[in-house]
Order: sequence, then structure tokens, then C-alpha cells
Amino acid sequence: MKALTYQGANKPPSLNDVPHPQITSATSAIVKLTYTTICGTDTHILSGAIPSIPSGRILGHEGVGEVAETGPGVTRFKKGDQVLISCITSCGTCISCKQGMPSHCETGGWILGNEVDGTQAEYVECRHADGSLYHIPEAMKQVERMKKLVMLSDIFPTGFECGVLNSKIRPGDTVAIVGAGPVGLAALITAQFYALKGVFVVDFDQNRLEVARGFGATHTCTPEEVEEVVRKETGGRMCDAVIEAVGADKSFESCQGLLAVGGRLANVGVHGGRARLRLEELWDRNVSITTRLVDATTTTQLMSLLQANKLPAEKLITHEYPFKDLEKAYQVFGQAAKEKALKVLIKMG
Amino acid sequence: MKALTYQGANKPPSLNDVPHPQITSATSAIVKLTYTTICGTDTHILSGAIPSIPSGRILGHEGVGEVAETGPGVTRFKKGDQVLISCITSCGTCISCKQGMPSHCETGGWILGNEVDGTQAEYVECRHADGSLYHIPEAMKQVERMKKLVMLSDIFPTGFECGVLNSKIRPGDTVAIVGAGPVGLAALITAQFYALKGVFVVDFDQNRLEVARGFGATHTCTPEEVEEVVRKETGGRMCDAVIEAVGADKSFESCQGLLAVGGRLANVGVHGGRARLRLEELWDRNVSITTRLVDATTTTQLMSLLQANKLPAEKLITHEYPFKDLEKAYQVFGQAAKEKALKVLIKMG
Repeated sequence: MKALTYQGANKPPSLNDVPHPQITSATSAIVKLTYTTICGTDTHILSGAIPSIPSGRILGHEGVGEVAETGPGVTRFKKGDQVLISCITSCGTCISCKQGMPSHCETGGWILGNEVDGTQAEYVECRHADGSLYHIPEAMKQVERMKKLVMLSDIFPTGFECGVLNSKIRPGDTVAIVGAGPVGLAALITAQFYALKGVFVVDFDQNRLEVARGFGATHTCTPEEVEEVVRKETGGRMCDAVIEAVGADKSFESCQGLLAVGGRLANVGVHGGRARLRLEELWDRNVSITTRLVDATTTTQLMSLLQANKLPAEKLITHEYPFKDLEKAYQVFGQAAKEKALKVLIKMG
Repeated sequence: MKALTYQGANKPPSLNDVPHPQITSATSAIVKLTYTTICGTDTHILSGAIPSIPSGRILGHEGVGEVAETGPGVTRFKKGDQVLISCITSCGTCISCKQGMPSHCETGGWILGNEVDGTQAEYVECRHADGSLYHIPEAMKQVERMKKLVMLSDIFPTGFECGVLNSKIRPGDTVAIVGAGPVGLAALITAQFYALKGVFVVDFDQNRLEVARGFGATHTCTPEEVEEVVRKETGGRMCDAVIEAVGADKSFESCQGLLAVGGRLANVGVHGGRARLRLEELWDRNVSITTRLVDATTTTQLMSLLQANKLPAEKLITHEYPFKDLEKAYQVFGQAAKEKALKVLIKMG
């Protein structure tokens, strides 16, 4: 079969012939992909940010498809089922899974396209299939309607769980979202599940800010302006909830300046270094700061909202390529600002 | 009357004759002190750490006493009532009070011995008396029994709310408390309200570690050893809850290394500068970090436990001086390690 494989740090990935995946454990399923997509994390990998990933690894942790084969321990899925693949593999029985943190599953977590071969391929082995795949509702089984479901493999659970749920957004809150990439926008869209007083969205990219206004941002501004704008608009009260969706020290630090007394700062970004904490200002402000790797424990909930037309997930898809053009799709996604790209959908042959 | 007044940065405070306090607002009460005590925060003030405090300010924010006079707006207290004075003044009606954060009360918060004259005096004006004083239960009204109540003005609510409640301690947890001063020990004592798997207490002072063992610490060690000790004792799982009760960047940073996946770090210490956040290790560990100024919203709860003999508050009192020796008491408290001092009780004349 064909698959997109990692070629080592700072080299373009390559669409190659590779062996067809095999069932390696009783609880695995083989899924034939229908759609997949590229994540910001994939481009981090290409820059060499995760040195444990070997050359030859098939990338990708998002997708929908059809079950082609199941191991003898799979009870919830059978050949021919249409499924959503979660970016998080969950055994359901280890201590982390039992505590609602499958992101830290002892034999799972984020392993697809990382510790094991991923979804940018014709077929993928999904371990712990019962805990890591989701049946696609009857009404969404048309190929064209399945597109939007790919957005639920990673970015919507990530924006919702790490951003919105961790920042404990409540109706009437004033919210700031720093970073308007796909995950920041997913946080913005899912923040609208709550009636908010105002939402400030912050980015350098004017195109993304325009997109954010379309998704309900009441104010948009650049990182340089934000503290002043929020101070003015809130009469100095600042924000109840702040979501960091960039993954940079500077951004994380500026988020701290946006917090109201009792405010909650939820970090969503992936950080490669230490950050400065303004503890001399925050120690007595009754704030919380949270981190989280997506647990994908809200996937079913998000799927219900998608089905009820309350989650415009498809609006994040700006580009679509056939699988054979995946290398080109990576080039476009790598120049996201210039190409005005958010999510680049890949349709299998 | 006599009162202990601030004389400016790095000068010893002085016991002087000062005017008797007056009722300045309808909701104030004048309280005649029976006991007061000295807080670590008072010694911070003496070092010039809070430059907004003017020379001549009467220090102190802890005490018990008897109501001597009430303003016309006071409804819950009358002359002759025995009362506990909370370190937090609460109007009960502003947005912060309504949200359970009297620490940020618009016309209160921590003002005693800070923005207004405090409790190291024969008499003190307590603003918003209805929300800031507590009736002393009948069974505790004997002068000797009222001693332990002074520990509920500040240190027990602080250790319990900022440390134990914010770190969301649950039965079966493994807990680390970094810093075994009075507030760290108050956190240790109130952490025992929950059945714990283990409690690591960390300090440089061997005497305080011995005291901590008496209060239920299962392991004690120095800051240099702690990460290694916790790793070994927990089989690498680390701590569910970590409480920082020092107020130093180095200590705050080392606390981060003690967190289990899903762990909660509660800052209790007062910090004067930025701190380093090990975000490159923590971003995907599902942790929370909280800060809080004590709200004293658990005072009634703690008083019930004291009355039920489930809070050995008196054990933190290591020294007792008459009010006339308050200057000497400050000297002893200023050399706490040498003097093996925890809380120094002051008995009025």
C-alpha cells in the first residue's frame, strides 16, 4: 500500500510503497482510510521536535474509514463498520484510563504517527479498537458528510477539553483565546456552546482574525495590543478564562496578564522550553493554570453536537487534496499563512 | 491605648501610646483584644516588602477578643460578644464576596495591619463586622481555651484553603508539602482530614521536620533530596497533590518536579519575583497550578472541627508572651529556627 513516511528531521516526508499493516494484538483493528488530514503536530515532527520518531514511521493521527479486519478481542466493531479514529488510543483498563486520562494510557495515549504507524496511509492498525474508534452515526455515513468528522479526531476534542473545559468557561464569562490556528479556532467554536459576554481572539495573522470574527469573536487584535484592549473593554476586570493556543513562552506570559481575579488560564499549546510565570503578580489572584494532553473523552459528545448541526466543524477545512497529492498538501500546510490554510483534508483514492 | 506600630523598613516595630480607635463606618465594631499573634507576613512588612504601608500603622491581622462597641449597621454582634477576628474583612455584597473570594472584597480583603490599623493593640476597629467576625462557641469561651482559636484567624484557613482545598486532596492521595513553617504545618494538619497514602514534608530545618512527623508526615526530607525520595517511594508515580508553602522561585520550581500525571500544585507562598515554569515537561501532563489569597470562607468549618477536637491547633503555639513584651516576642519570632518557634501567642494585659 501507499503511505506518507517520515524521512528524518528537516526533510520532506515521502509517499512510498510500504507493507500492509497486520493485526499485532487481539484488540487491534485494521481500518481502511476514507479521509485523513495533516496536523500542526505533524509539521513539528518534520522539524525534528520529537527525536524518538524513527525514519520510515508513517505519520498522521486523524482520520475516518472502514473497518477491514478485527482481532479476536474486538467486541464493538466488525468488518465493514464506518469509524472515526481518535488521535488517542485508550485501553480503558489502566489507571490513567480509569481516571479519565487516556492521554496517559499505559499502552496507548498519543501513539498513532508517533510510537506506531499512523493514518496518512491506505490502511492503519488501530490498537485497543474498542476504546479508540467511534461508530459513525447512520445519518453521517455518506462519504461527503464524513469529511467534517475528521475534525473530531484531534482538533475539536483538543480545543474543547484542553481549552474550554480546562478553563472552566461559564455563561456570562469574558474569554480570551491567544492563537487562531485550527486548535485555537476549535476552542473558539466550542466556547460558543456557552453564552459569553465577550471573546477576544489574538493573532498576528489578519486573515485568521477575520475567520475568528466569523466564528463569534467579539474583539480581535494582535498580541501587542491585547492587554491594553482587554483592559479598556472590560473596565480593568480582565478575562475570566484565557486559552493559550500557540505554544510559545512569550504568548504564555502575555496570557497571564489577561487574567481577572479568580481567572483560569488553560494551556493548549505544545511547549519546547521553560516559561516565565508572573508569580509576583499572580500569587494572591486566586487563579488556576492548567495543562492537558487531549484525552478525547468528549468525542461522543462532540459527535452528537455535529449531528445536531451545532458544531460547524467543516468550516475549518480550507483545502482538499487527493491522497496521491499528499506531499503537495504538506507544502501548502507548511505555508499556512500565505495559503490561508486551516485544515487540509486528504481524500483517499 | 498601647499598640505595636510599624516604624519603616528594616526598623524594629515599637510598642507606643496611640489614640483609641473610633467607629468610622456604620458596619464597624470595636473589639478589645484577648489574644493576638505574630504572622510571617508581619516580618515581611518589617523588611519593607509592602512599601504602601506607612510608618505608624498598627500591625497584626489575627486575634480573639470581646466586642466593645458596634456601629448602627452591625446586626450579628453586640457589646460583650466574644469573637474571633478573621484576617479577611468581607463586605459580603461585592462581586468578589458573592463569588466566594472575600480576599478580593472591594472594600475589604486583607486590610488589617496593612491598609488600616491591625490587631496588635488593646483595641481594633473591625470593618464589615458582620462578615469578618465569628462568634466563639459557648464551650470555648474560657480564656485559656480561646488561645487555639487565634490560629483560625489566618494560618489554618490559609493552609486549608490555599493548600489543601486548592490542591484538591482526595482520600488515598500521595501528597508533598514543601515548607514546614506554621502555614505549611497548618496544611499538613488539615490534609489529615483526608485518609492519605503518604505525606512527604520538605524543609531545611530538622526541628520543623520532627514536628511534621508528629503531625502525620510519613516521610520528611530536605529540598535537595525530595525529588529522588518521592520517585523511589512512589515507584516513579510522584505526588497527586503538591503544596508550596515557602514563597521562593527555587522551591516553586522543585514542586513542579514532584507532580504525578494529573497532579495539582497549590501555591500558598508569597512570591516577590517571577518563577520558572517547566512547561516543556508539564504541557502534556494534565496538571493544574493554583494561587490564592486566603478567603477565610472555611472559618466556621474549621471552628467546628476545633470544637470536635479534630484540629490540634494549639500545638502550633510554641511561645507565649504578655502584650507588654511584644517587642521581645518579635525578636524571638524573627529567629524562629534558632528559637524553635512556630506561633508566638500574645496575651493581653
